[in-house]
Amino acid sequence: MKRILSILMCVALALTLTGSALSESSDATPKYVFMFIGDGQGSPQINATQYYLGTLANPGAAIPKPAQLSFTGFPYVGIMTTYDATSFCPDSASTATSMASGNKTLSGVINYNIDKTESFKLITEYAKEQGKKVGVLSSVSIDHATPAAYYAKAVSRSMYYDIAVQGLSGQTLDFVGGGGYLQPTGAAGDQPALTDIAIENGFTIASTNDEIRALNADSGRVLAVVPDPDGSKAMQYEIDRQRIESAGGDSLSLSEMTQKAIDTLYGDDGFFLMVEGGKVDWSCHANDAKTSILETIAFSDAVNAALEFASAHPDETLIIVTGDHETGGLTIGFATTAYDTHFDYLAAQDISYADFDKVIAQLRDSGASFEQALAEIEARFGLTQTPDTGLSLTEEELAKLEAAYELSMTPSAERVIGKSEALAYGGYEPLSMACCHILNNKAGIAYTSYAHTGLQIPIYAYGVGAASFSGSYDNTDIFFKTMDAMGVEADAI
Amino acid sequence: MKRILSILMCVALALTLTGSALSESSDATPKYVFMFIGDGQGSPQINATQYYLGTLANPGAAIPKPAQLSFTGFPYVGIMTTYDATSFCPDSASTATSMASGNKTLSGVINYNIDKTESFKLITEYAKEQGKKVGVLSSVSIDHATPAAYYAKAVSRSMYYDIAVQGLSGQTLDFVGGGGYLQPTGAAGDQPALTDIAIENGFTIASTNDEIRALNADSGRVLAVVPDPDGSKAMQYEIDRQRIESAGGDSLSLSEMTQKAIDTLYGDDGFFLMVEGGKVDWSCHANDAKTSILETIAFSDAVNAALEFASAHPDETLIIVTGDHETGGLTIGFATTAYDTHFDYLAAQDISYADFDKVIAQLRDSGASFEQALAEIEARFGLTQTPDTGLSLTEEELAKLEAAYELSMTPSAERVIGKSEALAYGGYEPLSMACCHILNNKAGIAYTSYAHTGLQIPIYAYGVGAASFSGSYDNTDIFFKTMDAMGVEADAI
Repeated sequence: MKRILSILMCVALALTLTGSALSESSDATPKYVFMFIGDGQGSPQINATQYYLGTLANPGAAIPKPAQLSFTGFPYVGIMTTYDATSFCPDSASTATSMASGNKTLSGVINYNIDKTESFKLITEYAKEQGKKVGVLSSVSIDHATPAAYYAKAVSRSMYYDIAVQGLSGQTLDFVGGGGYLQPTGAAGDQPALTDIAIENGFTIASTNDEIRALNADSGRVLAVVPDPDGSKAMQYEIDRQRIESAGGDSLSLSEMTQKAIDTLYGDDGFFLMVEGGKVDWSCHANDAKTSILETIAFSDAVNAALEFASAHPDETLIIVTGDHETGGLTIGFATTAYDTHFDYLAAQDISYADFDKVIAQLRDSGASFEQALAEIEARFGLTQTPDTGLSLTEEELAKLEAAYELSMTPSAERVIGKSEALAYGGYEPLSMACCHILNNKAGIAYTSYAHTGLQIPIYAYGVGAASFSGSYDNTDIFFKTMDAMGVEADAI
Repeated sequence: MKRILSILMCVALALTLTGSALSESSDATPKYVFMFIGDGQGSPQINATQYYLGTLANPGAAIPKPAQLSFTGFPYVGIMTTYDATSFCPDSASTATSMASGNKTLSGVINYNIDKTESFKLITEYAKEQGKKVGVLSSVSIDHATPAAYYAKAVSRSMYYDIAVQGLSGQTLDFVGGGGYLQPTGAAGDQPALTDIAIENGFTIASTNDEIRALNADSGRVLAVVPDPDGSKAMQYEIDRQRIESAGGDSLSLSEMTQKAIDTLYGDDGFFLMVEGGKVDWSCHANDAKTSILETIAFSDAVNAALEFASAHPDETLIIVTGDHETGGLTIGFATTAYDTHFDYLAAQDISYADFDKVIAQLRDSGASFEQALAEIEARFGLTQTPDTGLSLTEEELAKLEAAYELSMTPSAERVIGKSEALAYGGYEPLSMACCHILNNKAGIAYTSYAHTGLQIPIYAYGVGAASFSGSYDNTDIFFKTMDAMGVEADAI
């Protein structure tokens, strides 16, 4: 509830700002540019979050009321297509390439052309030439496709070490942070340590919560990697982070990290800061609606950090908020719930599919019975054998859980996965998927895919130069519109 | 292909207009206002249509290319929430009420408050007071919820006769047309004929293609009802209309009807014309993607009629294009196709689910075998037992078709419909649904529901006063923004 109030208060701030006398003349250029990308975050993810928060904040209301997120009240809205050279359903490498460099390319390629022979110049490079500082922050690993596209060029997104080296040995980045690196000493573990390369290139490394919280405008070049107790090389899922904090732990949020990026980059030079909410995508791949909703809340909170900055620098700041593609084919409506939604049911879930996978591993290791598994499922998802509640399991649902349980209790190597299992679980832990699907459907939510979809994506823009982001266009236009807003001309080719 | 070229040409016109020196000052008010509502048409329906047309127009292209529709290049874009007082997944009565009167109400209620005690004043009534002529056109029946909300007030959308009488005996409508009336002589067949009421109130009735094509500015008040050979009280599905025309028949399109509405209403008074593409919704309820795509094409063509008018009246015309809600939970991406789409597969389907229901009835009446049914399915949907084509049926798909065939060959009254059948067919003819689902999924398209969903809906605006439709807002704001654009103040309450 504290979180919801915090969001609503910041929304009030945003709306106040919206009405203020912000300069939107086409002559003015922003000194501070924020580019927020919710990976896998399309309209359905944003709507679901608005409805979830609105349902919790207005129990028993005569008219259901969606909450505003920090950015949904922005004055300028656009809609963009996201297809790439491979498919109408693109990946994060090609879509980030489009937004960072203005070019279409193949899925899997970062800032190279379709022939993989020539690389593109990035908006962050232009920003640097303009004298701005440059920051890149992601809730997933720093070498992942979306953040990588804002500092590196690679014919394959899986060239993680090479991508990381480009970022740390190049001159573009002043702040880079979030999760860790997937190949800290190269794919074979035989290359110079990335931390050594960072230090050689003048980066200060902050890798504890205290070190990160101490960052400021005097910190110089910064590599800020959040502690990674479970080795995921990513920041915690917000749903798990909140559970950790509730239990007295300390885990940095994307909003705090965004604030530290601002603190580090702030100065007379101005800055360009890209912030990715990378785990909206991951949780929607896994069809985990509740976890995805909390990722969008964390993303919205991160935008609030930028809005607070903008309130202090109203004539100098541009904030662009968008997604790279939709993930999962999320919709708000399911065949059996028809016109009803029950977003309040989602409140019962307090764990991500990923952390529940670990619970399932413990159940498997301990030879847990189906009844023991059901007790765990009730504790974490609210799904219950107690009759006559909204979350009461039907016979069909119990049968689905039991089939998934049987498969999840089988060691991975021994599982037989046919077409129907592939369709039902998409390669994820069967029992986690069954829990997510059953809870989603009871809430009136469904997914059609474990992959990305071709849905067009909204853009919300605020501040100096924001007006040009209105309209319907392609994701490559994000590059050109941002360049125009910054008053920069692309080099002649 | 002719149709695709026609769309692309009109897009060129639209883009030319977009760049022209249209007056967008806040002082200017439009003499001619077009309100286009695609029922059930959200972003996914628009995107799917763009991808379908783009795929057919660019076979073998290195980069897949979506086509522009007539309105997707409009300069101002907004996004609106559509929830009503009943649900996040609203109906057409409440959503049209929101746009026509600026108020939220319950699902099923037309222009009455939640208590059903007070009615609302409509934008068409304000337009009339301003001296404008008023037209309402729909591809479904004239008394259906969406068109009704632009001329009537009723505590229940199913008060068809009362709604129709309000339209014909009231003073608001100068042109009303599309499909017919569901209750031409009342629910019990004992009321005065609507045609008599129309004539008494000075309407000219045009009910043949020739009579409709002859309509012009001298026709006075007009009731234009398309011929209805199959008694559906609606215009033909575009997919069926095109098949009829290909076979030498003559069936009016929504675009032609829009042109005739313009011809009838045109004059010094100016006009407000609402045009509904009503069967995007119907086909998406039935999860029939191809039919829905052709409905969106027909809708886009209808908007082109308005754009051509705007090119002759550039400083006097406002065109608003939106939907009322999304239907079906359509997504562009399916679990088994993942990142692949095959929109070209949809070209094989030449019949709506509704007309295929009639084919199935013939198969049932003639005691057709499954093999005979499969031959019919191959002829109309392209799904084939010939191996190694994109449309080759897998064993699982054949089994699905056979199960649906068995149920469809059983007389309706004798069918046993359990939960799994309800989920699989949603109350529709089982074999039609199985064909649509299999073809959809092969193309990389899926639905999650047979009902409406809670997805936010895009608005595209063009012309005088269009700028104010940019941004993110609620569907009730459509009323206030249109009123503002028209320079009209709402009455004090």
